[in-house]
Amino acid sequence: MSRFSSERLNKIEAYTPGEQPRDKSYIKLNTNESPYPPSEGVIRAINQKAVEDLRLYSDPTAKELRSALAELYGVGEKNVFLSNGSDDILNFAFMAYGAAGACFADITYGFYQVFAELYGIEAEIIPLSEDFTLDYRDYLGKDKLIVIANPNAPTGKTIPLWQIEEILGANPDTVVVIDEAYVDFGGESAVGLTERYQNLLCVGTFSKSRSMAGARLGFAIADEALIADLEKIKYSTNPYNINRLTQLAGAAAVRDNGYYMDNCKKIIKNRDYTIAELKALGFEVIDSKANFIFAKTDKCGGEELYLALKERGVLVRHFEKPRIKDYNRITIGSREEMEAFISAVREIVGEI
Amino acid sequence: MSRFSSERLNKIEAYTPGEQPRDKSYIKLNTNESPYPPSEGVIRAINQKAVEDLRLYSDPTAKELRSALAELYGVGEKNVFLSNGSDDILNFAFMAYGAAGACFADITYGFYQVFAELYGIEAEIIPLSEDFTLDYRDYLGKDKLIVIANPNAPTGKTIPLWQIEEILGANPDTVVVIDEAYVDFGGESAVGLTERYQNLLCVGTFSKSRSMAGARLGFAIADEALIADLEKIKYSTNPYNINRLTQLAGAAAVRDNGYYMDNCKKIIKNRDYTIAELKALGFEVIDSKANFIFAKTDKCGGEELYLALKERGVLVRHFEKPRIKDYNRITIGSREEMEAFISAVREIVGEI
Repeated sequence: MSRFSSERLNKIEAYTPGEQPRDKSYIKLNTNESPYPPSEGVIRAINQKAVEDLRLYSDPTAKELRSALAELYGVGEKNVFLSNGSDDILNFAFMAYGAAGACFADITYGFYQVFAELYGIEAEIIPLSEDFTLDYRDYLGKDKLIVIANPNAPTGKTIPLWQIEEILGANPDTVVVIDEAYVDFGGESAVGLTERYQNLLCVGTFSKSRSMAGARLGFAIADEALIADLEKIKYSTNPYNINRLTQLAGAAAVRDNGYYMDNCKKIIKNRDYTIAELKALGFEVIDSKANFIFAKTDKCGGEELYLALKERGVLVRHFEKPRIKDYNRITIGSREEMEAFISAVREIVGEI
Repeated sequence: MSRFSSERLNKIEAYTPGEQPRDKSYIKLNTNESPYPPSEGVIRAINQKAVEDLRLYSDPTAKELRSALAELYGVGEKNVFLSNGSDDILNFAFMAYGAAGACFADITYGFYQVFAELYGIEAEIIPLSEDFTLDYRDYLGKDKLIVIANPNAPTGKTIPLWQIEEILGANPDTVVVIDEAYVDFGGESAVGLTERYQNLLCVGTFSKSRSMAGARLGFAIADEALIADLEKIKYSTNPYNINRLTQLAGAAAVRDNGYYMDNCKKIIKNRDYTIAELKALGFEVIDSKANFIFAKTDKCGGEELYLALKERGVLVRHFEKPRIKDYNRITIGSREEMEAFISAVREIVGEI
């Protein structure tokens, strides 16, 4: 840091993205990307004409994409916000709604803590239960921003919609963010509740189920007034932040929704396979509704397994954090990738 | 705005991007885009393989692009920061360095004021002289963030490097941002000064001279410590914010630098042509080193001309602000576009 920057900035600890080593080619199961490419429609949408038109600014209202997404989710166009990835939207939510503080789980997406620090927001960290279950009763009557990932990361665990409704009803004067980055892999979306709850902000992404992590596209669905807040922040920071090609690709991806939902089914099958194999090897695996699983074994420490896998060309994500350091988060890839992962694990636990 | 959002956010006035009407096809001279498409290298870089790889996150370090840009500007890789457009970087600069306040000209890029309001930064607005010249002596010994667009927008006027050096030397404990969005059209870049001045942050963009407005790519060149500050904010908000395709396109654009610099020369010629024609029609035109000109005439009010041009299918930018409401900012497009613009102007001022 320089001697010029603000004290608060000097103190915060930034987010650490999953590693992207370049020393060799890895089976990449560490950042929850899709193993499947974007749909044919997306590939057709990014044609030479589209690239030539990059000389022009993108549509800051993302009209075509917004309209497609509104139709897909059965909401109005004014209920949809689009931005440069869901991190961008979570950032805006902390900026807009964090003045009175924020609360979230101790084991959840690490970026929430970073946003809180960035804006000097007091964060109440609410521990999950022993088995990483979120108890909705811990979130009733909070006078602050509530942020819940559902499914949660890195555990993959979910809470049912009725519990989200309880939280929404018991916090009528503060915003409840439901981060649904992983919802398409078996979770239940709260989008249907946005019509009834003005304080509900559902956040989604094209990075996971829609194979567009590198295109940068996130969305939020909520009451019009919340969407207007987010639009105001976007127009006060970076109004053109969604690439032209990404807008075309996003609209094409919505049109090709069936392709992506089929991919999710494949990933669920690969997840079932991986869980069964790991359990057969003596692993403890948390029941996951996401495109990753969270697993540990007595035979080998969390970091040890991570390193041994890396040596064998398989990248998974290990978090050196107190409650979860025995675990690894393993992204569910293609069947071939998961077979290679399992055979590497078998080698490792067999060796030890 | 919702009843949930912070008071500060409720009060600010967001930036208004140039209009993008869809009622008919316009000659678009209102947002300072390039009339020329991206280079052949850029078009080749965005191929089917690249689109398929959108399933993967982009490289948050943008290694290839960063290295290409460092070489082009003759600086180290640690002196280069990349983000989602130069607005994004200006936003970060206000966030990092605005704690003690900020100062900038009364007539300049409108976003500076928005950033200041967004972060509750006290802004000292320093009037330009009668003829819109920035007097560098107004910026000596300020204990706050200094932001200067050079060339300035919407005037197109520049200040010489020795005046920037005076400002840098007289403000050793605060950051001086030189916003060089338009520097390639005849301005003098301050990048060469970054080696000597730790407090200089030069901000550039691929949106203007490099025909990539819709791709979202901005960069900053500065001392390593300033770059580290910006990296920290990026990693605390949205680390993957540059699209994969944009990274490929940006690196290709740097390799094809000659093509873009030739385009700049064409635009300078078209600018000379447009200025001469407008002057012949009795316009007062400010001497511009940017890809736009700022002009007015006694024969017709600023808004009147803007509306009459729009009716004739030509979009220019009019700012309804006290000192400049008689003017219009006209982007310099291709020769054909400028001829069409001049003939529309001729019709309008002939009619009145």
